[in-house]
Amino acid sequence: MILSEGVWTEVDGGNGTFQAVDPSTGERIETAYPVCSWADLDRMAVASAAAVGHPANRDPERIARFLEAYADRLDTRREAIATMAHRETGLPLEPRLRVIEFDRMLGQLRQAAVAARDVGPDSWRTPIIDEATGIHSDRGPLGGAVLVIGPNNFPLAFHGVSGGDFASAIAAGNPVIAKGHPLHPGTGAMLAACAAEAAADAELHPATVQFFHHCDPEDGLRLIAHPTIAAVGFTGSRAAGLALKAAADAAGKPSFLEMSSVNPVFALPGAVTGDAAGIGEAWAGSILMGAGQFCTKPGILIAVGGDSRPLLDAAIATCESAAAGILFSAEATRELESGITAMIEAGADVHCGGNAASPGSRFEPTLLSVDASRFLERFEVLAAERFGPVGLFVAASDVDEAITIAGRLEGQLTVTMYTGDGDDDAWDRLAAVLRSRCGRLLENKMPTGVAVVPSMVHGGPYPATGHPGFTAVGMPTSIGRFSMARCWDGVANARLPEWLR
Amino acid sequence: MILSEGVWTEVDGGNGTFQAVDPSTGERIETAYPVCSWADLDRMAVASAAAVGHPANRDPERIARFLEAYADRLDTRREAIATMAHRETGLPLEPRLRVIEFDRMLGQLRQAAVAARDVGPDSWRTPIIDEATGIHSDRGPLGGAVLVIGPNNFPLAFHGVSGGDFASAIAAGNPVIAKGHPLHPGTGAMLAACAAEAAADAELHPATVQFFHHCDPEDGLRLIAHPTIAAVGFTGSRAAGLALKAAADAAGKPSFLEMSSVNPVFALPGAVTGDAAGIGEAWAGSILMGAGQFCTKPGILIAVGGDSRPLLDAAIATCESAAAGILFSAEATRELESGITAMIEAGADVHCGGNAASPGSRFEPTLLSVDASRFLERFEVLAAERFGPVGLFVAASDVDEAITIAGRLEGQLTVTMYTGDGDDDAWDRLAAVLRSRCGRLLENKMPTGVAVVPSMVHGGPYPATGHPGFTAVGMPTSIGRFSMARCWDGVANARLPEWLR
Repeated sequence: MILSEGVWTEVDGGNGTFQAVDPSTGERIETAYPVCSWADLDRMAVASAAAVGHPANRDPERIARFLEAYADRLDTRREAIATMAHRETGLPLEPRLRVIEFDRMLGQLRQAAVAARDVGPDSWRTPIIDEATGIHSDRGPLGGAVLVIGPNNFPLAFHGVSGGDFASAIAAGNPVIAKGHPLHPGTGAMLAACAAEAAADAELHPATVQFFHHCDPEDGLRLIAHPTIAAVGFTGSRAAGLALKAAADAAGKPSFLEMSSVNPVFALPGAVTGDAAGIGEAWAGSILMGAGQFCTKPGILIAVGGDSRPLLDAAIATCESAAAGILFSAEATRELESGITAMIEAGADVHCGGNAASPGSRFEPTLLSVDASRFLERFEVLAAERFGPVGLFVAASDVDEAITIAGRLEGQLTVTMYTGDGDDDAWDRLAAVLRSRCGRLLENKMPTGVAVVPSMVHGGPYPATGHPGFTAVGMPTSIGRFSMARCWDGVANARLPEWLR
Repeated sequence: MILSEGVWTEVDGGNGTFQAVDPSTGERIETAYPVCSWADLDRMAVASAAAVGHPANRDPERIARFLEAYADRLDTRREAIATMAHRETGLPLEPRLRVIEFDRMLGQLRQAAVAARDVGPDSWRTPIIDEATGIHSDRGPLGGAVLVIGPNNFPLAFHGVSGGDFASAIAAGNPVIAKGHPLHPGTGAMLAACAAEAAADAELHPATVQFFHHCDPEDGLRLIAHPTIAAVGFTGSRAAGLALKAAADAAGKPSFLEMSSVNPVFALPGAVTGDAAGIGEAWAGSILMGAGQFCTKPGILIAVGGDSRPLLDAAIATCESAAAGILFSAEATRELESGITAMIEAGADVHCGGNAASPGSRFEPTLLSVDASRFLERFEVLAAERFGPVGLFVAASDVDEAITIAGRLEGQLTVTMYTGDGDDDAWDRLAAVLRSRCGRLLENKMPTGVAVVPSMVHGGPYPATGHPGFTAVGMPTSIGRFSMARCWDGVANARLPEWLR
């Protein structure tokens, strides 16, 4: 079934079905879900055109009411949805899914409602009224549907049909075609059902929210070039993101991609000789959160100068006392194992873990280390993102060596520096290199928490994302991605949107 | 000679030289200018790295002083620069170059200075201070040089080393590598000399402004992928823009491209039966401005309903009484002639002009017409941009046919509707299609004037530009293109930029 024009509809069926697996046991979950054909995708894309610029979707109040009604409906089904997400992802039910991520999802939808309703001068619409020239401007919807593709690792708050990209695209007045994730189809179906009901309640155009579970990757790339698709929002792997980016670029469509990041942490000399144990424990704890399947996981810690062994030892102790984490799929454990093998072959030492575990797709908390010169020599392998409870400790002899490492880094979502006494100069020298290599620069805290506040930047230079100018988290700024700059020149007052009159 | 690290330097020389031509006479201008080699470009790119994040370039006051000093220096050489630009482009000296475009160039630089100095809450830096969470954000420079490539048609106000993209990139704190245009190298050399002197006066890093005249196109594309280049700003042809876009996309660099637009004008039924003569004269006047070499030239007028012949006749009369316009090069006249031939072969009738003229690269004011059904049949040929004093009149029988045409349009910089009595419903129906297809929507005025005011949007959906979210004109919004979103999470107050403390 796909959700097309407000109703659940049988798919073409030619592409077969798939089933999810409970990653905590490895057992297949009974329900089978369809893989869409191109005909199904084309049908949704064509249908979306009628929702573009439809009067109902141009009414900020109605959009806001939809977002609120959607959050309310989700809340009434909290238990069932969170339980399903737990079963399909293996993420902890309490407090992670049922409370933290659920509330985050509801909060984002409600913040988007507030932003949608806001027509003031500081709103995402950035209205400028110039009475002297009669030239006014604002931001408005893109003129096509937004294709939103969510990741495996946040089945609620980043889901294609309920997450931040969805909320942002809807708040800007666009219809959305949301793709579920094949690892949690039951969750997606429940979310999409609430969305469809809320859209009907709010009397939005029925093609405002459409949803499908899965498709052939080639059909997904083809969908981007469909004339009715205006933009793409994506959170996921670098490989998939780059394929989407290439398709969107070729078609001249904006894409907003959150792809990959190792989120390096630099422990500066004063920090290494300060609370080494505290930093080591915090690092390990941050690596283990969500079984290391966070886009902001600090995968690498570079300890600068002095004797950094106590820091590493504290991290090892924390990891050794932790249970194996549940990865989202057996494929993920295999990928992680082969990644660790590559790191070992490149010269890294394993201090704990390193192996898959059972039952299901579990993985041992894993720490490796390497010295800075070897790290730089085999940078491509050692500095690659490893999605799971794995961290690499790099011992750098001094600030100059840390600066050399900083200069090699690709664009990152986050970079962190831990500082202590005497580190002011080291901060300045490193920040001169690091500031423009990341969206978020942190001091003395781990990056895994992404607060949903207006000042958040969950973004960064390529290849962390596709464009350094945007953020995926933080209303109302995140809405700007799915809007266009519009000017109204000499247009009669009665024809202008209310916020420009 | 190239301007590299603040001094005029001999180039490698292996790629030879070129000369400009006076397009009003066709005579070659004596001075020879070098075509850079890859080694020259690489040298500038490597040098620019030292200017990125340099303390002098992080000082808003110093950047502002540079922009002001640059404008002042240009003003003292107004006569000489405008005269050179006139000779190299054939554009009228008075008032176009010496007054209008010169003042626009100075005004943009001075507006950029004001914006650079502005650290307030409404500035392009968009500072957000969140004391409760300790998470602050702003926008800052990109972390590399911006390559700015200006067009042939505004040798001052859009020049790579003095135009809006240059001013925006500098105001955001980036170094710039500016490419001159091979059709007006003498103008570029004079502008760049003023820039170098002003940068020295303001004590910016000497690699903040670098300049070269010309390069092999392949080397230009290679430059984009250079690790020290952060972004590209370009104004010019679609073919060149798409090549740059592909190179920038592949390298993961943001590109801001203003490429092409036919800027359709719809004369709605009430306008056609109203002041038909006035609209026809205004259209022809707009087509003839700058010999039709404006990116906002309204190349197509679609007259909707009724007897639109009086409108066409008025436009023809205006064109017939006008002198031939001077195109920028003999190549441009050949391109225009072959474009018109293709339009005629596709079924358009010629009412006046259609031919190149002499001396130099002149072209007759040219009007063609076609009916809507033929226009739709041969849309690709007939709706293509023709850079010169050429307009196509399309007779549409009713609003439905106009809507069909609107639905076929590519992304545009501007779309205009002329309205009269009884056109409210037609406006609504057409605006529903047209609003998201252009950056600027106009009513009852021609689009060729682009006011430099904050509410201007000189942008639009692909392929008018590379991204619908941005504008190339209008401070401070245009600065946002060359900045990145930055978050400072838990960072000690003393390490923050002054506007976040």
